[in-house]
Amino acid sequence: MKYVYSFKEGNKDMREILGGKGANLAEMTNLGLPVPQGFTVSTEACNDYYENNLKISDEITIQIFEKLEELERITEKKFGDKENPLLVSVRSGARASMPGMMDTILNLGMNSEVCESLAIKTNNRRFALDSYRRLIQMYSDVVMNLPKGSFEGLFDEYKKEVGKELDTDLNSQDLEEVIRRYKREYLKLVGKEFPEDPREQLIEAVKAVFRSWNTDRAKTYRKLNDIPEEWGTAVNVQSMVYGNTGDNSGTGVCFTRNPSTGENELFGEFLINAQGEDVVAGIRTPESIDKLKEIMPECYEEFKRVCEILEKHYKDMQDMEFTIENRKLYMLQTRNGKRTTKAAIKIAVDQVREGLITRNEALLRIEPKDLDQLLHPIFDEKDLKAKEVVAHGLAASPGAACGKLYFSKEDVLKAHDNGEKDIILVREETSPEDIEGMNVARGILTVRGGMTSHAAVVARGMGTTCVSGCSSIVVDISNKTIKTLDGKILREGEYISLDGSTGNVYFDKINMLEAEISGDFEEFMRWADDVRRLEVRVNADTPRDAKVARKFGAQGIGLCRTEHMFFDEARIFNFRRMIIAPTLEKREEALSKILPYQREDFEGLFTEMNNLPVIIRFLDPPLHEFLPKKDSEIRMLAESLGEDFNFIKEKVDSLKEFNPMMGHRGCRLAITYPEIARMQTRAVLEAAINVKKKGLNPVPEIMIPLVGDAKEFVFVKTIVDLEAKKVFEENNMTIDYKVGTMIEIPRACVESDKIASVAEFFSYGTNDLTQLTYGFSRDDASKFLKDYYDKKVFDNDPFQSIDRDGVGKLMSLSSILARSVRSDISLGICGEHGGDKNSIEFCHNIGLDYVSCSPYRVPIARLAAAQAAIKAKNNK
Amino acid sequence: MKYVYSFKEGNKDMREILGGKGANLAEMTNLGLPVPQGFTVSTEACNDYYENNLKISDEITIQIFEKLEELERITEKKFGDKENPLLVSVRSGARASMPGMMDTILNLGMNSEVCESLAIKTNNRRFALDSYRRLIQMYSDVVMNLPKGSFEGLFDEYKKEVGKELDTDLNSQDLEEVIRRYKREYLKLVGKEFPEDPREQLIEAVKAVFRSWNTDRAKTYRKLNDIPEEWGTAVNVQSMVYGNTGDNSGTGVCFTRNPSTGENELFGEFLINAQGEDVVAGIRTPESIDKLKEIMPECYEEFKRVCEILEKHYKDMQDMEFTIENRKLYMLQTRNGKRTTKAAIKIAVDQVREGLITRNEALLRIEPKDLDQLLHPIFDEKDLKAKEVVAHGLAASPGAACGKLYFSKEDVLKAHDNGEKDIILVREETSPEDIEGMNVARGILTVRGGMTSHAAVVARGMGTTCVSGCSSIVVDISNKTIKTLDGKILREGEYISLDGSTGNVYFDKINMLEAEISGDFEEFMRWADDVRRLEVRVNADTPRDAKVARKFGAQGIGLCRTEHMFFDEARIFNFRRMIIAPTLEKREEALSKILPYQREDFEGLFTEMNNLPVIIRFLDPPLHEFLPKKDSEIRMLAESLGEDFNFIKEKVDSLKEFNPMMGHRGCRLAITYPEIARMQTRAVLEAAINVKKKGLNPVPEIMIPLVGDAKEFVFVKTIVDLEAKKVFEENNMTIDYKVGTMIEIPRACVESDKIASVAEFFSYGTNDLTQLTYGFSRDDASKFLKDYYDKKVFDNDPFQSIDRDGVGKLMSLSSILARSVRSDISLGICGEHGGDKNSIEFCHNIGLDYVSCSPYRVPIARLAAAQAAIKAKNNK
Repeated sequence: MKYVYSFKEGNKDMREILGGKGANLAEMTNLGLPVPQGFTVSTEACNDYYENNLKISDEITIQIFEKLEELERITEKKFGDKENPLLVSVRSGARASMPGMMDTILNLGMNSEVCESLAIKTNNRRFALDSYRRLIQMYSDVVMNLPKGSFEGLFDEYKKEVGKELDTDLNSQDLEEVIRRYKREYLKLVGKEFPEDPREQLIEAVKAVFRSWNTDRAKTYRKLNDIPEEWGTAVNVQSMVYGNTGDNSGTGVCFTRNPSTGENELFGEFLINAQGEDVVAGIRTPESIDKLKEIMPECYEEFKRVCEILEKHYKDMQDMEFTIENRKLYMLQTRNGKRTTKAAIKIAVDQVREGLITRNEALLRIEPKDLDQLLHPIFDEKDLKAKEVVAHGLAASPGAACGKLYFSKEDVLKAHDNGEKDIILVREETSPEDIEGMNVARGILTVRGGMTSHAAVVARGMGTTCVSGCSSIVVDISNKTIKTLDGKILREGEYISLDGSTGNVYFDKINMLEAEISGDFEEFMRWADDVRRLEVRVNADTPRDAKVARKFGAQGIGLCRTEHMFFDEARIFNFRRMIIAPTLEKREEALSKILPYQREDFEGLFTEMNNLPVIIRFLDPPLHEFLPKKDSEIRMLAESLGEDFNFIKEKVDSLKEFNPMMGHRGCRLAITYPEIARMQTRAVLEAAINVKKKGLNPVPEIMIPLVGDAKEFVFVKTIVDLEAKKVFEENNMTIDYKVGTMIEIPRACVESDKIASVAEFFSYGTNDLTQLTYGFSRDDASKFLKDYYDKKVFDNDPFQSIDRDGVGKLMSLSSILARSVRSDISLGICGEHGGDKNSIEFCHNIGLDYVSCSPYRVPIARLAAAQAAIKAKNNK
Repeated sequence: MKYVYSFKEGNKDMREILGGKGANLAEMTNLGLPVPQGFTVSTEACNDYYENNLKISDEITIQIFEKLEELERITEKKFGDKENPLLVSVRSGARASMPGMMDTILNLGMNSEVCESLAIKTNNRRFALDSYRRLIQMYSDVVMNLPKGSFEGLFDEYKKEVGKELDTDLNSQDLEEVIRRYKREYLKLVGKEFPEDPREQLIEAVKAVFRSWNTDRAKTYRKLNDIPEEWGTAVNVQSMVYGNTGDNSGTGVCFTRNPSTGENELFGEFLINAQGEDVVAGIRTPESIDKLKEIMPECYEEFKRVCEILEKHYKDMQDMEFTIENRKLYMLQTRNGKRTTKAAIKIAVDQVREGLITRNEALLRIEPKDLDQLLHPIFDEKDLKAKEVVAHGLAASPGAACGKLYFSKEDVLKAHDNGEKDIILVREETSPEDIEGMNVARGILTVRGGMTSHAAVVARGMGTTCVSGCSSIVVDISNKTIKTLDGKILREGEYISLDGSTGNVYFDKINMLEAEISGDFEEFMRWADDVRRLEVRVNADTPRDAKVARKFGAQGIGLCRTEHMFFDEARIFNFRRMIIAPTLEKREEALSKILPYQREDFEGLFTEMNNLPVIIRFLDPPLHEFLPKKDSEIRMLAESLGEDFNFIKEKVDSLKEFNPMMGHRGCRLAITYPEIARMQTRAVLEAAINVKKKGLNPVPEIMIPLVGDAKEFVFVKTIVDLEAKKVFEENNMTIDYKVGTMIEIPRACVESDKIASVAEFFSYGTNDLTQLTYGFSRDDASKFLKDYYDKKVFDNDPFQSIDRDGVGKLMSLSSILARSVRSDISLGICGEHGGDKNSIEFCHNIGLDYVSCSPYRVPIARLAAAQAAIKAKNNK
């Protein structure tokens, strides 16, 4: 079996075996671009390593050294040779990009003798020593896992000793001393000398990269990004080129377009006389790529040419690493660049206009859930004008964020657990250890690091607002304060606002406004609407939600939960009066007090959704949810109702249920208390009449929940129709209305032909349907589902994405049965799955008519519906 | 539309329209038997009456009087005529027999003038007056709904006044005076005179019978016997014949065979000089039918001839009413007779031997659930010998009963609600108002009434032990005591024992023994076994249950619930220790204490079920079910475990669930705590090995509960197989075992192909499957299902009989999917439905292999399985 591939043996479609980096290095090699040659140890070798008890097999070792010999022939250098030494880098490269998550070691093949020889050969003793120093430091950290601080500490200590500030200030004598001290430290910590054998260095480095696949931070990243553990990482062994040979050299990273805005311009950074990790780590603040044009115009032109070739070839914006060694350009990496959603849309729309890709390709390129970034609030300009910009950093990840200030991952997580939602994390600079904190923060502020620093890259990936490199702020970790240059102080827990699009920082709370869909985004969404077949409706209970959703393109309300309307203080009082009423008359009296509120609510919804269907679900939760639980609260309720405490207490107790999820709720309430359904019918239809009288066109659809048998539905529909007749007679006016049901009980799925013969529409309530199909109580399952994930019994959460094998089969069966008796029945879903891409694709595939989701997910669902349609067409 | 049918227009197959009594009167008429002629007002007229706001329509009235004229022509008498008056009876007659539940009025057409004329014509003034008196009394009661007591009171008062004891002691003068007093009372209570117009009497009587369909007692009876309300009752109007004209007359009821034992002999009772209601009401204790042979041999012979004709014609044992008027026999009714199950089996087996019916017909004739009567305990003869028979009554309904004595329906129900199971009801005589109390009592004792009294008939129908007509006992209702003639006293709540097969009464507790299947019953069950395809297994958790079940014909254990074994005091302690264990080690330690108990339990089961499969279900209920709830109990537990109260309290709280039915239970426990499944595997297989070492052949089958996904099953099966391997190695012996699953989650049904590819058997857990398919929590649903029945949304309880449309469809789909991947998979059910006839039929029809039910239902299931096979064959 082949485990090791030279670059010229691979291509970009081999990322499963070679990893993304390896596959693209191979592709660039084949395109004839200037790539330092090397070879890739495959992901299969990584899996073999893990299966083999953390050992690299003899076979793989042999293949590695075969390819090393091949590399020696190509480069005409020899690994470990004193005369003409070959030095190599070793880098991880998984199938999916995991920026900064895994390890790299440079300058392998160096030892005391090689260093001397290199010094002579390059006529640059300082460079040779610096490279050796870096090897020892990286090897100690990555391979031997020694504490980073101890080597950095030695280095800083030495600089202080000799009174030098920058690394570049150190001369050869200094570096010789540093290397001596490093080696002494290594011996002390490891118990043996730093390895002088380059072959040992290489194999240990490959192992270290394999091991880095399983660090905690890599695991966390994979979990956050749904990357399977079994993919493994490949290892790229590449001959070294040096950006640190002097001012004719340098290293940089660059995007072919602006990853933040999407503008069609090179966007990158460049450090003179430095090696790659100096840029990525954000320790020195680099120059813009434009600077290269000034310093080395011929290198810049060559680089631009390479960029154009790559974008045309990959048909997508590229994110590249390059090094210039003595004015010669080398490409070290290319990949499709991460970008903000705003940029992604602009790039996709531009590339369609440029003729590079089709509209459908553009639509498939955006991950629907990433649209979320564009839908969230921005600063209210009016309020913003009044606020003072106290500092300014790099606009690293766009968006507006306002929240309370915290200084560490731990504090952020604590605040989050306490229910705080608006949190800003400030760090000197972030590192992979901060990931969890960054994940829950609304915004991130760093003092050091550029546009491609860890903080910036990760924040853009997460869609979190970020201002990086804000050097005009001083962080005092121990006192938990930050200070501006002119002495303004902000403490932990105080409000700060960040503008990730301008880099502005405010020590204040700023009002936020809703986002709008306009410009390229609007055009992009129009394309999506043109190709999708599924309608998108919204789950909305208030006119405010309905308004937002309509702005976002909702084509009606798929679910209005009427019970949410009862929780208002004035209403809950009458609702509770209704619940505890001992007679029908008293119950009807209390309901008559609730009627005007409900009618008003519905008028608002019909007005906002003029001309569009509004599905109103009748009362669903068990009545005990509306009553207090504690004696003290019951006592208060009793007093306010003028009733005896014991009477109320008994009522509360009598409504308790063993399994409320499967209890007295949904249409079961209407069967026991038809008067509730009567009141709700009246509220819906009187509201529709009032709105119609204003010249609008309300489209009411009444939904009976939790139906498991056609007879239940008929019972409630009869109540609705009788009351409707009354309302129409009283008002001398009729309204077209439909009566349908929610399909959320397994039995309803297998009885769908009978139910569809009486119901005019179905809405799959996939939350409850999932609970009952699995027999999982959602409130309790999280406790044991954790064990399911840990023990790999389940891969996915069926409450996130529709379980196609189980719940999906029932839905599919149901839709076939329903259409067999009523071919034009309207079918949709209104669970939380309505905003999930995979679930939407499933709904498209089984031929539903619409999905309904929360307001902010409406554009996501529109795009997901479009992608589902395109994929279905492509698969034909 | 035709609403009224003369007897000669009908036949026995028209019972839907004519009711049972009407159809059989028509049939007997057509057979040429001596039936007093008349006509039947149809059940459709009854429904018309209810739809028509409790009015008899003009059309129906006209048809009634047309048929009355026809009857006048046949009988050559005239209704209301002074010269030659036609008198008629009006009796109810529903499709299904409802003994004593509905009303009868005799002697209609009588008034003062007719009475005088009848006196002259019959030359029997006393008879005419007695008939008139009876009419007024019955009319007042049934038609006018006047308090019964007031007329009975007048009658008793008058008898006292004149110092006469028996009704027959009264002479004409006496009766004239009684009639005068009755009429005065009638006027006083009604406000107008007793109606002299016979036509008014007739129509009002018909209405009264219609109304009697809806009395509370009729409703209760219908509910207990699953008789639909919409059937309605027919009304039979029949010319009167008189058993009360003197000693040449009489009236009786008779069965063609003994309804208690099944012996092939006439079994009936006869009262000289009496009308029918005297026999049924049980007021006078009648003579045996044999007496008739002595008194009127020619009538007896004629009657015997009629009996033979009827039994041959109906091919079943008949229950008849007859009257002899001046030595002429008249048949008033025939129907298939109710009988004890013991009798039913003997009759069926005898009739097969006599060549009257086939074996399959015999098997279809017994209602499977009635076998229950034969399976219940009898007195332990050894203990019985020591007990004194204190009184002796009629052996009215066989069986043995021992329990605490109660004196009224109310007291019986109260005791029952308090959890008492062994209850004996004693009454002077029972009436339909006592039904509910009779329904929960183990035995019934009455002082008055014969073998066909209300108590006797109802008790036999219910399969409840009854001793009737025990006149040697005196009931003192006010002091709640009974006394024997020699002064022995028994008080409320003290133990009494009844032998319904001998009529013996004991003032003592007597030990009971299990029933046996032998004789005719055994032969009958062998016939059932010959035709059935479904195997019958038992749900048994103890060797004792297993033993009983095997004796009853169980072919293995279909479900052993291991958790029941944990509730024993010594075990629960260690089980609780296991639950609260903070570490795996402590949990395993506690489990190791439980292992020997479990192993011992299983050894017992394997021994009893030698050679037969024993399905052992792994731990199923959520762990909190094993922990105490109250603080005081938690404190005790904490002390006994030597743990802190708060620690235990927190553990208890942390295990609480919102919806325990859908919570952390079933295989989900084994996924979280594999060590429990490991311990149970070891217990099962070590037990099997120990039993095998004794030379027996254990057949263990391990069942994983609550599986919804094949991966869950594989996870637990892997634990089982690994532990099995260990146990076999340790013992140097292997055992064949299967691992299967319970299908009780809707998702498992649609995933059955995947699950069957790894599971070796399926057992449908129809209790939980019904809960989840409907989304009904069984613990909560009773509250609202009541409304469902009241409002006719549901007809049947899906927990009683499998819901074929919903749950059934899922089972059917599942079995097809399962067999598609594993054609020889064993499929069965083990819910409570396993003992229900309709459910068993369904299981047969979808091709399951077995049903499993509780021990006492095993014979029931065997018969039901046979009936299902016969029906399926007949339907082909």
